[in-house]
Amino acid sequence: MNARKIPDIIIGRLPVYLRALQRMADMGLKTTSSQELGEHVGISAAQIRKDISQFGEFGKQGTGYSIEYLNNKLREILKVDRIWDVIVVGAGDMGHAVANYQGFMNRGFHVVAIFDNDKSKVGQTIGEFTVEDTELMIERIKDLGVKIAMLTVPAPAAQAVADQLVQAGVRAILNYAPISLNVPNNVKVQYIDPSTHLQRMTYYL
Amino acid sequence: MNARKIPDIIIGRLPVYLRALQRMADMGLKTTSSQELGEHVGISAAQIRKDISQFGEFGKQGTGYSIEYLNNKLREILKVDRIWDVIVVGAGDMGHAVANYQGFMNRGFHVVAIFDNDKSKVGQTIGEFTVEDTELMIERIKDLGVKIAMLTVPAPAAQAVADQLVQAGVRAILNYAPISLNVPNNVKVQYIDPSTHLQRMTYYL
Repeated sequence: MNARKIPDIIIGRLPVYLRALQRMADMGLKTTSSQELGEHVGISAAQIRKDISQFGEFGKQGTGYSIEYLNNKLREILKVDRIWDVIVVGAGDMGHAVANYQGFMNRGFHVVAIFDNDKSKVGQTIGEFTVEDTELMIERIKDLGVKIAMLTVPAPAAQAVADQLVQAGVRAILNYAPISLNVPNNVKVQYIDPSTHLQRMTYYL
Repeated sequence: MNARKIPDIIIGRLPVYLRALQRMADMGLKTTSSQELGEHVGISAAQIRKDISQFGEFGKQGTGYSIEYLNNKLREILKVDRIWDVIVVGAGDMGHAVANYQGFMNRGFHVVAIFDNDKSKVGQTIGEFTVEDTELMIERIKDLGVKIAMLTVPAPAAQAVADQLVQAGVRAILNYAPISLNVPNNVKVQYIDPSTHLQRMTYYL
């Protein structure tokens, strides 16, 4: 199914569908329709059917989608039918919060290490983790074979850390710092940007 | 321009365009095209033109968009041509990080207070703020006239706090807790969900 190139905008919607399906499953629901799913995620039923049909025929005319089946298929497509190790760089408030975040459970991710360049923080305990020195980070990432990092350092430090992460083999960076990162084409970056979410709501105020 | 109902999915893309335009302006650029903007945000040029044309004619055939003009127009449409006061509920690691976040500057938001129900945290200093008691939160929100809140409490506490916020007159909640909130139809909720961002990247790994 990767032979054909699926537009990134469609890939971006799949985790949103998956989250809604997981919530429905948690509520004990067994089947859903593109209409119902659309109401949950704020996307038209037609768009949802079109997006999902890119990957095959997962629903039946008239009976809709099996939540469990579609859930499993989306997890497979997004490759979160496994657990990915993730590192955190930056042991400030945000790093603490992210390392201890309870929302990665059952979503495919597991934090395995947290790094900081501040010697006074190195060796400190954060939940189950001991803060490690960024000086040793590249080697540690290579040893662990980690491909995903969350970046919670201050904005002025973010690009230099991102360069190190790329050098170490990281291919996906979730950036909490309010700054754009320059990375090679084979590295993906996503941004946590609360202002964007807030601006989506002020329209309605 | 609010007489006609614009689909929420379009409203959701405007902050993304605005962020890209602000970056271009920061880089000293004066004009852009839907093609160029599309490359920055990963959305087709046709979609961008269609979205923006919902609000009027802001570009010229052949010469594209004035970055400053479109920037100002989008800020006006999203109502971030002013500064919105925002409160934070939950003075844990995430609350600290959000209260001190540098990324609200020039985006239309200003944190004015932070609350917690933990008496040992009340009175503590976080940057320029003193943590206030949630017992007094409803009155404080009404006095301040705040309409926007960021929720950084643990998941089990989130719904009860959201109910209080709605009672106090809050109409937009940015929820960091990994749990869905039930709110009345006239209240907007957005979620900060790092797993969704990570899942968008694992597809490519």
